[in-house]
Amino acid sequence: MGLESIRIVLARPLYGGNVGSVCRAMMNMGFSRLVLVEPRAGNDAELRKMAMHAIPIYDQREEYPTVAEAVADCGVVVGTTARMGLYRAHARTAREWAGPILEASGANQVAFVFGPEDRGLRNDEIALCTHIIQIPSTDAYASLNLAQAVMICCYELYVATGSFEPVEEKAGAAASEQRERMFRMWRETLLDIGFMEEPKADHMMHGLRRILSRDLLSSSDVKILMGIARQAQWCAKKAREAQNRPS
Amino acid sequence: MGLESIRIVLARPLYGGNVGSVCRAMMNMGFSRLVLVEPRAGNDAELRKMAMHAIPIYDQREEYPTVAEAVADCGVVVGTTARMGLYRAHARTAREWAGPILEASGANQVAFVFGPEDRGLRNDEIALCTHIIQIPSTDAYASLNLAQAVMICCYELYVATGSFEPVEEKAGAAASEQRERMFRMWRETLLDIGFMEEPKADHMMHGLRRILSRDLLSSSDVKILMGIARQAQWCAKKAREAQNRPS
Repeated sequence: MGLESIRIVLARPLYGGNVGSVCRAMMNMGFSRLVLVEPRAGNDAELRKMAMHAIPIYDQREEYPTVAEAVADCGVVVGTTARMGLYRAHARTAREWAGPILEASGANQVAFVFGPEDRGLRNDEIALCTHIIQIPSTDAYASLNLAQAVMICCYELYVATGSFEPVEEKAGAAASEQRERMFRMWRETLLDIGFMEEPKADHMMHGLRRILSRDLLSSSDVKILMGIARQAQWCAKKAREAQNRPS
Repeated sequence: MGLESIRIVLARPLYGGNVGSVCRAMMNMGFSRLVLVEPRAGNDAELRKMAMHAIPIYDQREEYPTVAEAVADCGVVVGTTARMGLYRAHARTAREWAGPILEASGANQVAFVFGPEDRGLRNDEIALCTHIIQIPSTDAYASLNLAQAVMICCYELYVATGSFEPVEEKAGAAASEQRERMFRMWRETLLDIGFMEEPKADHMMHGLRRILSRDLLSSSDVKILMGIARQAQWCAKKAREAQNRPS
C-alpha cells in the first residue's frame, strides 16, 4: 500500500499554471509521479510560479501521446468526471473510493486520469477506466478547476493513509487533582478580591467550572490559571494592608 | 445549520489569481460570502480568468480594514494554519472540525480566516480564533496554495452537509431471477459455440460468475449479456446448418 505506485495523469492540459498547481498539490499530499498526455503549449513562467517548491515533480514528468499508453501497465485506472451519463453510471465519490484504491495500490500500479480544463475526458478515455470518481460539488457550479480536482483526490488518498497527525498538546491534560487544586485557589481568590461572598460562592464556582471545562485543560493551562489566582491574592492582601495602615 | 452563515475571510491576499480561484472553489462547494481584509493590488484579469462563472462572488465581496472587524459579529472564528507553535496547540484537522462547525453554523455566524500566501495569519489574528484547523499535508511540503486550502475547508464542510449524492445507476440491480436466466443462457451458448463441453461446464460457469459478480449488475447490464448470448447462439446455429448443408 503506497502512494508511490499511484501516478497522476493529465490528458491534454491547456494551462501551464494549472499544471504547476497540480505539482504543488501532489507534493503537499505525498505524490511524485506526474504523467502528461499531449500537453498543449503551457505558460512556463506561470507553471513555475504555481509549482513553487514542487517544480522537481514537473522536471521529472513523463509524457505519452495517448492516455492508453500512459496507463498501459496499470491494474487500476481511475477516471474523474463531473459529467453524468453514458459510461459514468458507476461513479462513487472520491472519499468512497479512496480506501479501496489505496488498498489496491499495494499490489498494482494505479493511475488517476484527469481530462483537459475545457472538456474533461473523452468517452474512449473513460472506457479505459476501472473506477470512476465524482467529486462532490453543487449543481450551481459543478465544474472544479483542474488542480482543485487533483488536490481533492490526492487529499482523500493521503488522509486515507492515516499518516497525518494533527498537532498534539504536548503538555497533556491536567490530572483531576491538579484541576481541583486550581479551582480551590480560584474560589479563595474570588472571595479574597471581593468578587463574590460565601453564600453565592458555590454557584459562581459552578459557572467558572463550566467556562473552564469546554475542552481539556493542559497542565500548563492550569499553571497559568493558578499563577493568576496567586497574584490576585497577593494584590488583595496588599490592598487590605493599605486599608488597615494608619494614614 | 447552513453554509450561508459561513463566510470566507482572506487576510491581505497577494495574488488576484488566488482570489479568483477561491471564488470558484466557494461556488463549487455552495458558499457565497467572501470577505477581504486589506487586499493588495491584485491582477484583475487573472482574478476573473480563475474565478470563471464564480465572479459574482467577487463582485459581491465585503472589505474590512482588519480581521477583527471582519469577524466582529461571529460566534465561531476558525483560523487555518500550517505552522505549529504558540496558540496553535489545539489544532484539529479540517475533517474533525467540519461536523461540529457545521452544527454551530445553525445558530452562529461563522468565519473561516485564511492568511496571506507568503506568511499565514499573524499571532494577533490567530488569537481571535475559537477553532484552529490544520490541513493534512506532508512534512516535505506542508504549505498549500491559498485557494487549495480554502477548497479543502469548503469541501469538508460541503461533504459534512450530506447533501451530495453520487450518480446512481438508474436501472437498479438486476433481480436474482433475471441474473440466473442470463447465466443459463450463457451456459447453453458456451456449449453451443463449442467454447466448453459438458464435463467442464460447471467449473467454467463458476469462473464466469466470478467475473460478472465483482459489482452489482444492473437490469440493463443483464439485458446486454443476454443479447450477446442470444446472438452467439444464432451464429452457432447458422454455422451448424452450413456444415450440414450438402456442398
